[in-house]
Amino acid sequence: MYIGIDLGGTNIKAGVVDENGTIIYKDSCPTGAGRPSNDILKDMADLAVDTVKKAGLTMDDIQSVGVGSPGSVDEENGVLIRAENLNFDHVPICAKISEYTGKKTYLGNDANVAALAEYYAQGKEMECFIAVTLGTGVGGGIVINGKLYTGFNGAAAEVGHMVTHAGGHRCNCGRSGCWEAYASVSALIRQTKASLAEDSTSLMYQAVDGDLSKVGGKTAFDAAKQGDAAAQKVVQTYLENVGIGIANLINVFQPDMIVIGGAISKEGDYLLNPVKEFCAKEAFTQSGKVTELKIAGLGNDAGLIGAAFLGK
Amino acid sequence: MYIGIDLGGTNIKAGVVDENGTIIYKDSCPTGAGRPSNDILKDMADLAVDTVKKAGLTMDDIQSVGVGSPGSVDEENGVLIRAENLNFDHVPICAKISEYTGKKTYLGNDANVAALAEYYAQGKEMECFIAVTLGTGVGGGIVINGKLYTGFNGAAAEVGHMVTHAGGHRCNCGRSGCWEAYASVSALIRQTKASLAEDSTSLMYQAVDGDLSKVGGKTAFDAAKQGDAAAQKVVQTYLENVGIGIANLINVFQPDMIVIGGAISKEGDYLLNPVKEFCAKEAFTQSGKVTELKIAGLGNDAGLIGAAFLGK
Repeated sequence: MYIGIDLGGTNIKAGVVDENGTIIYKDSCPTGAGRPSNDILKDMADLAVDTVKKAGLTMDDIQSVGVGSPGSVDEENGVLIRAENLNFDHVPICAKISEYTGKKTYLGNDANVAALAEYYAQGKEMECFIAVTLGTGVGGGIVINGKLYTGFNGAAAEVGHMVTHAGGHRCNCGRSGCWEAYASVSALIRQTKASLAEDSTSLMYQAVDGDLSKVGGKTAFDAAKQGDAAAQKVVQTYLENVGIGIANLINVFQPDMIVIGGAISKEGDYLLNPVKEFCAKEAFTQSGKVTELKIAGLGNDAGLIGAAFLGK
Repeated sequence: MYIGIDLGGTNIKAGVVDENGTIIYKDSCPTGAGRPSNDILKDMADLAVDTVKKAGLTMDDIQSVGVGSPGSVDEENGVLIRAENLNFDHVPICAKISEYTGKKTYLGNDANVAALAEYYAQGKEMECFIAVTLGTGVGGGIVINGKLYTGFNGAAAEVGHMVTHAGGHRCNCGRSGCWEAYASVSALIRQTKASLAEDSTSLMYQAVDGDLSKVGGKTAFDAAKQGDAAAQKVVQTYLENVGIGIANLINVFQPDMIVIGGAISKEGDYLLNPVKEFCAKEAFTQSGKVTELKIAGLGNDAGLIGAAFLGK
């Protein structure tokens, strides 16, 4: 048994996970971001210990604790180097959590550990597996030969910050035209609003009662499915932009599989099939072996399960 | 001792290479692309055997033969799947060369094996090393933990075919806005010609006597170094486009080192320094550990040495 802790900007989730990635018991509490790091770390440890009790287990049943955190992590030393939304700067997460729980503790970036969980969930060995998250931002995790690939400084797999639209929209990272600025939920909302600002006759406009602040990541998808032409145009362009980045990853990595997660992945085949078609045209596949594209299966639990698996 | 064979569209190069990557003797002959593959393979083997004699050695001194080839290769089975410029389709290169030379033969993609040679030339272990070639096209090779990373189908590291300028210039691969269409010698020539078509007063125009067919990959660089404003603008834009792709690779891989080779790399610091400055702004480096950027050191011999090292 392992404890997984998913440290988010809004909530802390903790749970007990078995060898197979099944969550025995999980719970969450507010992060209270902005508080001193020690207070947050104490809450994380308390929550973790509490889930063990509620799972009907004791700490003797636990092999190790894993923490998935946003930001740049130094896995080797168990230090969270920098996480903007938590205001954490060089926080020795593993040392503290280990002190509080008495267990060996591992640390990984949240997108990376989620990728690890999705990899194990496939139940087969692969040379290269990539998980892409289309959420508020666009994140990624790369698993090569069964191990997380995080580069020489732990910060690799920032696939959202590969420029696909040089000279395009400014990204939060400072670059212009990042994939994230075209394929994230935030980007889709911006694109949907731009369409509404031009055309107030669409179904999308009705759906939000003409109030652009009500536009969400589903607004365009929902209207497109009902046949609204303006929405279909927004969705088509958005999906092409998703496809551009996925095809880039295929041409660079030729991974066995890419899974797409995050809020937008709930669109399922409506997202996946056009992206597959796009990649069939745009990715190098002379050998006849084509990267498998799938929707990620674990949803919001991927971070927790992947964190637990850091000690596996 | 190893034999390396670099199969190019114009010439075949072969040479005897020692453990340290020193070429003992090398020679070349025309490829005669378009001829039956067996004729070309026979020439490759004959040239290889001949270099061994001329090096004052016998085939008993040779451990293995390595072939670097353009196109998609199936390394495991030693088959060149497809190389457009040779008109090779599923050619069993290793079986044939092994038959002719009596030696175990390995096959790799030419850009990949060149990367392997450049990696060994650095003389230190690295988690991730990438070689980028700015030539007629833009190629790449990725070495992870000392081994070539070629993906599940042998076709990975096509870094030139990552789209950086969505909706931009059509690339030979069929995609629009590939990095190759902005950072290759061919792209630079196109960009230089576009500048000349607009402005016939620049030094570049004088340098080619107003004949656009004389524009080469050095035209803009040479005039820029002499202070020509139009040329400096062409070079600046070109170098930014090179930087965009390099920064993308850093954000995705966080490699220990990227070396830049190919024709344009002869510009040395005039190329390297602006790209370094660009990446310092555009690459994620919160840990303080920054990818080292260098000009590739082996020049045209990288392909031959890397092919030889396939058997190492």
